[in-house]
Amino acid sequence: MSKNRYQLRCICCGGEYSPQEVLYTCPKCGNRRGTLEVVYDFNQETKWLREDRKGIKKFIDLLPVEEKFIPDNVIVGDTPLYSSGRLADEYGMSGVLIKDDGKNPTASFKDRASVIAVAMAKELGYRDIYAASTGNAASSLSGLCAGNDVKAHIFVPASAPEAKIAQMLIYGAEVFTVAGSYDIAFDLSLKEGEQHGWYCRNSAVNPYLLEGKKTCALELAAQTSLELPDYIFVGVGDGTVYSSFIKGFRDLLALNVIKKIPHVIGVQAEGSAPVKETFEKGDPYEIDDWERTDTVADSIAVGKPRDYLKACRYASEYGGDFVSVSDEAIGSAIMELARKTGVFAEPAAAASFAGFKVLALSGEIPRDSTVALIVTGNGLKDVKTPYHFLKEREISINP
Amino acid sequence: MSKNRYQLRCICCGGEYSPQEVLYTCPKCGNRRGTLEVVYDFNQETKWLREDRKGIKKFIDLLPVEEKFIPDNVIVGDTPLYSSGRLADEYGMSGVLIKDDGKNPTASFKDRASVIAVAMAKELGYRDIYAASTGNAASSLSGLCAGNDVKAHIFVPASAPEAKIAQMLIYGAEVFTVAGSYDIAFDLSLKEGEQHGWYCRNSAVNPYLLEGKKTCALELAAQTSLELPDYIFVGVGDGTVYSSFIKGFRDLLALNVIKKIPHVIGVQAEGSAPVKETFEKGDPYEIDDWERTDTVADSIAVGKPRDYLKACRYASEYGGDFVSVSDEAIGSAIMELARKTGVFAEPAAAASFAGFKVLALSGEIPRDSTVALIVTGNGLKDVKTPYHFLKEREISINP
Repeated sequence: MSKNRYQLRCICCGGEYSPQEVLYTCPKCGNRRGTLEVVYDFNQETKWLREDRKGIKKFIDLLPVEEKFIPDNVIVGDTPLYSSGRLADEYGMSGVLIKDDGKNPTASFKDRASVIAVAMAKELGYRDIYAASTGNAASSLSGLCAGNDVKAHIFVPASAPEAKIAQMLIYGAEVFTVAGSYDIAFDLSLKEGEQHGWYCRNSAVNPYLLEGKKTCALELAAQTSLELPDYIFVGVGDGTVYSSFIKGFRDLLALNVIKKIPHVIGVQAEGSAPVKETFEKGDPYEIDDWERTDTVADSIAVGKPRDYLKACRYASEYGGDFVSVSDEAIGSAIMELARKTGVFAEPAAAASFAGFKVLALSGEIPRDSTVALIVTGNGLKDVKTPYHFLKEREISINP
Repeated sequence: MSKNRYQLRCICCGGEYSPQEVLYTCPKCGNRRGTLEVVYDFNQETKWLREDRKGIKKFIDLLPVEEKFIPDNVIVGDTPLYSSGRLADEYGMSGVLIKDDGKNPTASFKDRASVIAVAMAKELGYRDIYAASTGNAASSLSGLCAGNDVKAHIFVPASAPEAKIAQMLIYGAEVFTVAGSYDIAFDLSLKEGEQHGWYCRNSAVNPYLLEGKKTCALELAAQTSLELPDYIFVGVGDGTVYSSFIKGFRDLLALNVIKKIPHVIGVQAEGSAPVKETFEKGDPYEIDDWERTDTVADSIAVGKPRDYLKACRYASEYGGDFVSVSDEAIGSAIMELARKTGVFAEPAAAASFAGFKVLALSGEIPRDSTVALIVTGNGLKDVKTPYHFLKEREISINP
């Protein structure tokens, strides 16, 4: 297959660029508000779904890279979609779907972006990629670089869970633990990455990564035979994952495959909710970054969200919304989800369920709706947090 | 579908029983040597593969439970089979396949057995199941009981990795940590389980669990379109996982689906190798249990293997063998596998690769063979062990 044709459009000023003109962000609007979106030139040959392929390659016609560059040593995507009759009954819904994206190769949703980063780097001739991350994006990049002759350089806050840091090192990445927050690690990564001439896997800056992330929305469409749920709940940190769902559905709308876009509800932690706050202030979405964040959900602990503008614009345009939940609600959501459905989610991944519970119990989600909960990471990524919330403990026996 | 018909045959004396006559082991030979095998009464209607189903249900004609009792809140099986051109080149093989069974719902191969335990318990009317485990079988049972109205009661050595214990508690199991080895936990579980009248999920004792485990062999057959590898490498603790591969292939042989059985090579840790030792002594395979085991591969740290006799008999009859590897070899196998293939294995799961390396480098595996490495558990189950073996560490930055 030949490469799909597309332009890059600035989410802030609407300016359009060819992929040859700019690498990352809009030169006029800068790399905070000037994030770009990929606008395809779909044609008669475009097929949204190619069932003869595996994982994200099923959606190759809607991706910005050539198929031959997409790593195939592991399969990204094709994660299970479960239906929980029990949760549907208990919360008065006609259906509750659980998309278990913790079943990706490195156990998180972020593999959908990393695989595109590696493919783009290969296409562009880079041998090094860098990323700042709260943990999952970095362990994901490390895992996708492994076996693909690309070196990962990682910047994480020193507080990232040890399982994630160990994962990166085992995969052979160079890991810098930064004294300070994710936001400080992010700014440092940009400086170091530019200085060394490495390719950038920071989702907010690199417009192609969202295209990888949107494959989760496309899989939902395929797995439900286009009977999409009314509501989708997903955790929000930088904002890119949130936007990726709307972008995926918007592409399907443009292709006339679906008629409407589900309400995508972004769930933030109460101790780290600048996107929700900014959305509520309304257009033109001028953000006040949070200097400090305070939440157990490390993957969404972002005080300076880099892709907030796209998230706010998309939510406004397509009936989305944001909600925030307490750490206690996240902790009990982990346990309830595990015990009632068998799916063990990491804290940020259980936030989607916690957010759903808030809106379902308050009546803001109409009864008999169908909802999908996106589980963005496996619970094994961070066992300490839920352990802290457990009421039951193991019982010691000395026989 | 109606229930498949079968008999239970003692691996020691060959005595046959109906499923109504005995629950677990041969009354004559006792529960150490008298483990049973399930012998089906295959007929014209038997189809080894039903592609319209998901996970292990694809092999429902070769399972001892009714389909309606098999939990479907999560999908067990359908794990990816990767082909590593790089490992094949480096070790002079014509193909190296990696079966990533860490992609099961609770991140280990053991889910294949637990799902059958839950199905059998439901069929027989039990509401409680118990298991002794080095960790994976127990976290697996806990995860499969969750959402299925069955309570898991778990006995693990106090030294089991914390990620595994946390997993069990989060899924809502009752967890007893036993001061002492797996072997002590095992004997205690039998006593407590019998006293309370709980259903037993100890693979060696319960003959049906091996039937669940054999679905990995059946998946290999399906995924390779019956072009099975010449050699299969898999870690060995109690011996049941080992035997399950040969049993799966033997069922296919009985059905005339395949013509020969691959050489299944069981890999033990040098510090815990009683099955290998007993196999080398030869028939009648009188075992000397090891009082102490010493290995980082907690999932195969078994000094008193409960299903050794079946493993030895099967290996002898079908061209299998056993090899042992050092902890250092396991540690470096974890890193090499992760970095060259992108698959992060827990220690016992990387033992398969370590064992392959020993035999490939010594020339005992002929050049241009095809091999499959079974990765029985995800690396996130135990990040501390490989971290200990790492030469590279994270670099602290204070910007």
